[in-house]
Amino acid sequence: MMKLSELKDQLYKQNKRAISRAISLIEDSDPHAISFIKEISKKTGGAYRIGITGPPGAGKSTLTNQLTKHLIKQNKKVGIIAVDPTSPFTGGAVLGDRIRMGEIGTLPDVFIRSMATRGSLGGLSTKAIDAADVIDAAGYDYIIFETVGVGQSELDIAKTADTTMVVLVPESGDSIQAMKAGLMEIADFFVLNKSDRPGSDKALTSLQTTLMFREHDEKTYLPKILKCIASENTGVEEVLNEISSHKKHLNDSDSFNQRRKNNKRIRIKEIVETNLSIDIWNDKRINLLNEKISDVSSTSVSPYFTAETIIEDYKKDILDIKK
Amino acid sequence: MMKLSELKDQLYKQNKRAISRAISLIEDSDPHAISFIKEISKKTGGAYRIGITGPPGAGKSTLTNQLTKHLIKQNKKVGIIAVDPTSPFTGGAVLGDRIRMGEIGTLPDVFIRSMATRGSLGGLSTKAIDAADVIDAAGYDYIIFETVGVGQSELDIAKTADTTMVVLVPESGDSIQAMKAGLMEIADFFVLNKSDRPGSDKALTSLQTTLMFREHDEKTYLPKILKCIASENTGVEEVLNEISSHKKHLNDSDSFNQRRKNNKRIRIKEIVETNLSIDIWNDKRINLLNEKISDVSSTSVSPYFTAETIIEDYKKDILDIKK
Repeated sequence: MMKLSELKDQLYKQNKRAISRAISLIEDSDPHAISFIKEISKKTGGAYRIGITGPPGAGKSTLTNQLTKHLIKQNKKVGIIAVDPTSPFTGGAVLGDRIRMGEIGTLPDVFIRSMATRGSLGGLSTKAIDAADVIDAAGYDYIIFETVGVGQSELDIAKTADTTMVVLVPESGDSIQAMKAGLMEIADFFVLNKSDRPGSDKALTSLQTTLMFREHDEKTYLPKILKCIASENTGVEEVLNEISSHKKHLNDSDSFNQRRKNNKRIRIKEIVETNLSIDIWNDKRINLLNEKISDVSSTSVSPYFTAETIIEDYKKDILDIKK
Repeated sequence: MMKLSELKDQLYKQNKRAISRAISLIEDSDPHAISFIKEISKKTGGAYRIGITGPPGAGKSTLTNQLTKHLIKQNKKVGIIAVDPTSPFTGGAVLGDRIRMGEIGTLPDVFIRSMATRGSLGGLSTKAIDAADVIDAAGYDYIIFETVGVGQSELDIAKTADTTMVVLVPESGDSIQAMKAGLMEIADFFVLNKSDRPGSDKALTSLQTTLMFREHDEKTYLPKILKCIASENTGVEEVLNEISSHKKHLNDSDSFNQRRKNNKRIRIKEIVETNLSIDIWNDKRINLLNEKISDVSSTSVSPYFTAETIIEDYKKDILDIKK
């Protein structure tokens, strides 16, 4: 295996295999992953992070694809992290889509990585953001998080971007209803994709009405709604312009640093909680939990009692270690 | 305010106001809530818990409504906990629906409570299950969790039921795709609601195909797919029969206790993690976090360093308290 120092050197040279390998360390919870992330931290912060989220079938991948093509024409380097069960990156969609996306993945200035939702959902957003740090440290200009806006974890990832757009289609009505709370609040702007489809104007009006109920004041950036047909590259440049103007707004109002700080706060909180959880659920305490549950005499014991026993055991161990 | 001992007495007498008040204690994170839950724990376990989940607009509330009517005809007492932004209970749907559901809420043998998704998402499943314990301790025969299958938290709640059904409609195609991982795995059986609509047979076939890929062996209960038109009360009795036959299967195969133990395990884990999280994020450490983030010189410090500092501070406090 490549040494970590060598991996770091290769990463800084934008070697795609090194980027890929570093992200694998993170995904596999390799014992060296954390120290690696810590080390490259000083090189991060340069990449502008874009979140693209929305219900399944809204065309997020197609839009990501088109935006990326525009960005590389401007000689920018683009990293894409796809966390989406229906994304062609992660294998949920039809073969045609997958090939289309694979196409940009082979371009020298594009790095694509898909991360799975299955398994350790709790840690997914931490891992996706760590992965973004790797791409950031490698000197990429843009990082796009493509996530489907259904789970909390996916929303968390999209939320950590500098600019977050929510992609909808005219048919999204019902889904929007359900995801309203989450999706509406994280959008810096909306993209109504496939806007040539019937019901487009009605969806637009309905979205505008919903937005009117969103809290906002003069300082807030009022989310625009852009129409677009990503598959035909119609309206994509306008999406790009909106990203730039949101970026400008952030800088002019000094919200940029505020937003990054806030994201850092959320991230630290998640790391703390993940680490505590790993700490407390060692083999010993998992055994303790299983014992307590198997104990027939304890059927009517409240789970709160057992939880207290486990926390006490954890605290006792901290004391013993420190002695 | 009513004394807790009196509240308990009234609860055991199935006084609806007492049930409601006890659940409010839980929702408000009242300091007495936990000790109350602990005390009534010995009276729980008698109610059969049914989870009803699925995408928004699938007609979960209508089905809940109809099932409840059938159950009370059998002289059963039914408690309903609705965690669903699109549910008429929680105020997401059209007025007509809300009135229709309100109707069963006034019946003496039905208790309905809606719990909000907004705010402390993390603790929602703990609170919903605590609320179920309250209704259980009051001697209700059935508890129905109605949750929309979009968030992790809502899935967690549905998962803790003894029998969980996933309600779909012919149009659910795209949503199913996205939620596949979560929804498919928790279903003991499926209900294809509004099955008179076009596309019903296609949806059925597509669902069957998906199920074929689900892992199963001889011991596993193969999930059936039932057609139903809840609004016309067509097929509802079959849903009820399927609940009974799943219940029988659980008892015959001794999976019932296994499943309850497993649910208890998940619940204890969540309580432990919630408590630790409350423990660590006291005012002092929130201040510490904010200081670290505001420190300009620390912009390039990895969040992992800050997280470690915070955990160290937490452990130090445990030592100081124990001294």
